[in-house]
Amino acid sequence: MTSAPSALFTDLYQLTMMQGYHAYGLHTEEAVFDLYFRKQPFGGGFAVWAGLEPALAMLETLRFTEEDLAYLGTLGLFRPDFLEALRGWRFSGRVTAFREGSVVFAHEPLLTVTAPLWEAQLVETALLNTLNFQTLVATKATRCVLAAEASPFGGQIVEFGARRAQGPDGALSAARAAYVGGAVGTSNVEAGRRYGLPLTGTHAHAWVESFPDELAAFRAYAELYPDSTTLLLDTVDTLRSGLPNALTVARELRAAGHELRGVRLDSGDLAYLSRRIRAALDEAGFPNVKIVASNDLSESVIASVIAEGGRIDVYGVGTQLATAGGEGGGALGGVFKLAQLGGIPRMKLTGDPAKFSLPGVKHVWRAVNDQGELVFDALTLGDAPRTGDRLSAPTNPLRASRVPGGLAWEDARQVVMEGGQRTGEPETLQAAQARARADLARLPAGTRRALNPHLYRVGLGEDVAGLRDRVAEGLRVHAEA
Amino acid sequence: MTSAPSALFTDLYQLTMMQGYHAYGLHTEEAVFDLYFRKQPFGGGFAVWAGLEPALAMLETLRFTEEDLAYLGTLGLFRPDFLEALRGWRFSGRVTAFREGSVVFAHEPLLTVTAPLWEAQLVETALLNTLNFQTLVATKATRCVLAAEASPFGGQIVEFGARRAQGPDGALSAARAAYVGGAVGTSNVEAGRRYGLPLTGTHAHAWVESFPDELAAFRAYAELYPDSTTLLLDTVDTLRSGLPNALTVARELRAAGHELRGVRLDSGDLAYLSRRIRAALDEAGFPNVKIVASNDLSESVIASVIAEGGRIDVYGVGTQLATAGGEGGGALGGVFKLAQLGGIPRMKLTGDPAKFSLPGVKHVWRAVNDQGELVFDALTLGDAPRTGDRLSAPTNPLRASRVPGGLAWEDARQVVMEGGQRTGEPETLQAAQARARADLARLPAGTRRALNPHLYRVGLGEDVAGLRDRVAEGLRVHAEA
Repeated sequence: MTSAPSALFTDLYQLTMMQGYHAYGLHTEEAVFDLYFRKQPFGGGFAVWAGLEPALAMLETLRFTEEDLAYLGTLGLFRPDFLEALRGWRFSGRVTAFREGSVVFAHEPLLTVTAPLWEAQLVETALLNTLNFQTLVATKATRCVLAAEASPFGGQIVEFGARRAQGPDGALSAARAAYVGGAVGTSNVEAGRRYGLPLTGTHAHAWVESFPDELAAFRAYAELYPDSTTLLLDTVDTLRSGLPNALTVARELRAAGHELRGVRLDSGDLAYLSRRIRAALDEAGFPNVKIVASNDLSESVIASVIAEGGRIDVYGVGTQLATAGGEGGGALGGVFKLAQLGGIPRMKLTGDPAKFSLPGVKHVWRAVNDQGELVFDALTLGDAPRTGDRLSAPTNPLRASRVPGGLAWEDARQVVMEGGQRTGEPETLQAAQARARADLARLPAGTRRALNPHLYRVGLGEDVAGLRDRVAEGLRVHAEA
Repeated sequence: MTSAPSALFTDLYQLTMMQGYHAYGLHTEEAVFDLYFRKQPFGGGFAVWAGLEPALAMLETLRFTEEDLAYLGTLGLFRPDFLEALRGWRFSGRVTAFREGSVVFAHEPLLTVTAPLWEAQLVETALLNTLNFQTLVATKATRCVLAAEASPFGGQIVEFGARRAQGPDGALSAARAAYVGGAVGTSNVEAGRRYGLPLTGTHAHAWVESFPDELAAFRAYAELYPDSTTLLLDTVDTLRSGLPNALTVARELRAAGHELRGVRLDSGDLAYLSRRIRAALDEAGFPNVKIVASNDLSESVIASVIAEGGRIDVYGVGTQLATAGGEGGGALGGVFKLAQLGGIPRMKLTGDPAKFSLPGVKHVWRAVNDQGELVFDALTLGDAPRTGDRLSAPTNPLRASRVPGGLAWEDARQVVMEGGQRTGEPETLQAAQARARADLARLPAGTRRALNPHLYRVGLGEDVAGLRDRVAEGLRVHAEA
């Protein structure tokens, strides 16, 4: 769990293809692969790009160990000369990518690998594994943050999902990505250590059950943590037992010069209970005691609790955040497709036009209007589009428009790795979180909507669309010959 | 990725509670915690229990390292005497559990930890993380296997999901659990090495795009792997290009004394295409060439392809298997609840009767009829139920029945760890897979149905129900006093 993936963390076919490229002398041909997804997750209007730094760390350190080679030797598929060639293998390519925390959209290349073919081929599985999941969780976290912040009283998100995550790495990656998306902390201690994340926690029902009664349990916890106690109210009965006992402890703490930090709800009607508890706390002179809630929360549960006047300050989101659950969640369908090899554009057609890949080496341009708002993104083979240029939708050439005037253009991606080495210091997670917040603020408001959002456009420049059509035509003619 | 979780892979509150138990002298009290889930995943009628061996390995090796203690010391929450006590901490408890591959049901204790309170408390997060996810994936795999085997022509499942899994561990655990649930192999090379799983693979679109044309690419692959080539047909056009080129290569291989192993479909109408391709292969004299399919498969897609006469031999299930996706998937809501402490039964009430925990030390009995079919499970505080005993539903005391005669009883769980050490050698995955298959065969047929299944009953013996009612009453009286 604590080390990077091994070189064998890949699909078998990557290795059999690598041997083939090597055998036919194609392995050193310069390949360009684009990583992108085809569908916005959760039925939303955007995604938040995350996982880049771990992906770059993986690329820098990936090697075949003697144990790896020995195992491959047992499979009966690999020749000694190929295994010998793997002994010196390392990733030596260039990576062009969005910075972590950027708001990104379907059909645009998020990360482009330019490397000898057998290097680019091997890293597909591990790159997708890391970037698909972290982008999905950062997006989910952002959606929860947007829901919580819609309350007139504000609200924060913390990540509570370690026990429901898909393996320990899943939990750790989720805590990291949730922070990029705007969560303020995690309950996961290992994630706190590894990524420097703020840690947060309360106590469990078992704590209350381990004492003669609830009040004794609350007092014991508060005595030990007089400045950081959040009491769980529902072991017996939230309003009839948990709340009065918490008020008793809040008064005792204050008498001793401390303040109760919070109370936690973990069952029942969170809107109703939080209103009742907020009123009781305020009336008793504890307006600063926070109300924390957990219990299968999601952006839609948060929104509905707020719509009914709920007064929750901190949402502990577990399962739905750590597994990026919900409609259109669970997995981001990111893919990694060959766009050029040996200087020649490449693509696949497949039986489904929506799954055509885009050939050529593309630039991603982001249009900003004079209010500083993002307007649309455009893919070209070179410079930014000019006023009047035609842009077409990636999956429907008939949907096209002209580039209006008055726009500024941002080159949306940077070269983040060259010669297999990062071009700069790793960014902090704080920087990524700040970028996500800033990018979200630049989005058209309707694009941030949780469901049925405004669809932010990604357009293909005429050069990209033309190249795609020419390459596709060439493949079709060949097939029909 | 390659080592076991650290002791810090836990929620912060486990550690703050541990310090509390230690401070108040409760940490050595003997605690009994039950791990169970409340709802069958995927809307199905059963779950397949998986992840036990990794969980036991974690319990055997869990220690706090000096680095762990140093980090905890920086948090400002933990006292030196507590950190010193953690230096010698190890798990010394007993574990009673179902064997891996067993078919299990909601509300029955799947695993019970009996250990000093602070030991049992710490391991909650890591146990749930491992067992929730692997049980979910094994169940998903079983559902896919049942769907595939419903074809008159049979069908097998392989796990293809590494790139969409939730982190590297998620992918590895999923490959392992999918095998327990009946998958015959995985594409994940690291999973193959670590768990001894059969590896499987084809080639990608990039392979085809790296050659002058599809036929050249097919020939190159077949030359290199003359006895293990599966050709991907849809890079250009499945029926007009992929299929004729594959037939050409199949003939050339045969002329050279080899046989094409298979062809793979990755887009389009899998039922239609597989019928067409099966017919073409058969007509050309290649009845043994297998048809492999991928592309967002799930148990319901598999069932619908078979219902329409699809002729797929091997289903490569990726995203849906590695992330256990689909309705009611993504996460198994397993919990870990205190049932007894210092010999005294404990429970929580909460605001939701369905979330009451069951106090006391319980036995799980499995009733088998004279045809060898499983009939229902029963929880008691001791011996197996007798004919005529009353059993009530876990969440609804009004739903009750009497135990019929003519049943044999199996003690469903074993002591698998004592004094923090396994009581026997780790089981092989082959044994777990065989147990799952055997248990499934013993289930009432309707319980295996994918949707709206027969609900296999789990009943509470009168002693369990009575204890729950007495403990709950005591808590309520106290709350109202």
